[in-house]
Amino acid sequence: MMNVVLLEPEIPQNTGNIGRTCCATGTKLHLIEPMGFRINEKSLKRAGMDYWENLDVTIYDSYNDFLEQNPNAKMWYATTKAPKRYTDVEFGTDDFIMFGKESAGIPEEILVDNKEGCIRIPMNPDIRSLNLANSVSIVLYEALRQNDFAGMQMEGELHRLKWM
Amino acid sequence: MMNVVLLEPEIPQNTGNIGRTCCATGTKLHLIEPMGFRINEKSLKRAGMDYWENLDVTIYDSYNDFLEQNPNAKMWYATTKAPKRYTDVEFGTDDFIMFGKESAGIPEEILVDNKEGCIRIPMNPDIRSLNLANSVSIVLYEALRQNDFAGMQMEGELHRLKWM
Repeated sequence: MMNVVLLEPEIPQNTGNIGRTCCATGTKLHLIEPMGFRINEKSLKRAGMDYWENLDVTIYDSYNDFLEQNPNAKMWYATTKAPKRYTDVEFGTDDFIMFGKESAGIPEEILVDNKEGCIRIPMNPDIRSLNLANSVSIVLYEALRQNDFAGMQMEGELHRLKWM
Repeated sequence: MMNVVLLEPEIPQNTGNIGRTCCATGTKLHLIEPMGFRINEKSLKRAGMDYWENLDVTIYDSYNDFLEQNPNAKMWYATTKAPKRYTDVEFGTDDFIMFGKESAGIPEEILVDNKEGCIRIPMNPDIRSLNLANSVSIVLYEALRQNDFAGMQMEGELHRLKWM
């Protein structure tokens, strides 16, 4: 099972959309406090997140709390500052992909300690960054693609039309 | 240059985010009316779309108008109903990828006429679909990856930290 880690996310709609993507792919979501919003019924409904109750999600008090509870995690760090592309690495089926807050990304002190795991989504330099939920989707689906969508069960079969 | 086509999009935040992704990747955006919103300064600002002015975007009156103005487009149709995965096809560098409205996807009559071009993002069957902007990001970046991010200039160089 793949793992998405959001470090101190700020915008509830993004976390809502990311939760939806995690539900759709059987991915576990890890949320690290402090967050810019509260996870409650009202905010999730507003974000169209009826899926939240089916989501495998854990909330941590801090980054250290996350590290302590996941000592053996194979970590990747998505950042605009990495030389390596996300398509240049080999993802395992149970890896963790971390994304920083919308306004600032992952703090440099974390990146410096984990250079080998830093990966970047190619984008034109005149744009600051992609939307957070889009970035998660791009990297997560590349990891799934590399593993032939292994963790996903029965996908597709139910959706097909008769004429296909 | 890749092309993203949104057929009658309904939610302005999605189109805003997709525009941001198009800006970030040098992709042209095609919007087909009727849309569920007006493209104006206020709505774009609300969606954080300061990038819109740098976007290569064309708005069409109808699907037929789009077809007439792009007679030689190599088209792909993203739909949950296709048997073929988006990772199973070979994208060219100037292809067009169409996405339907949030509530309904691409109409079946268009899909039936273009079976060979229909592609699907794998997802668990108990979820209706991914967020539209996330779906666009996933398929577009797979197309870019297959072509080694050919259309994107100077990406990354400016972003790197000294320690990388």
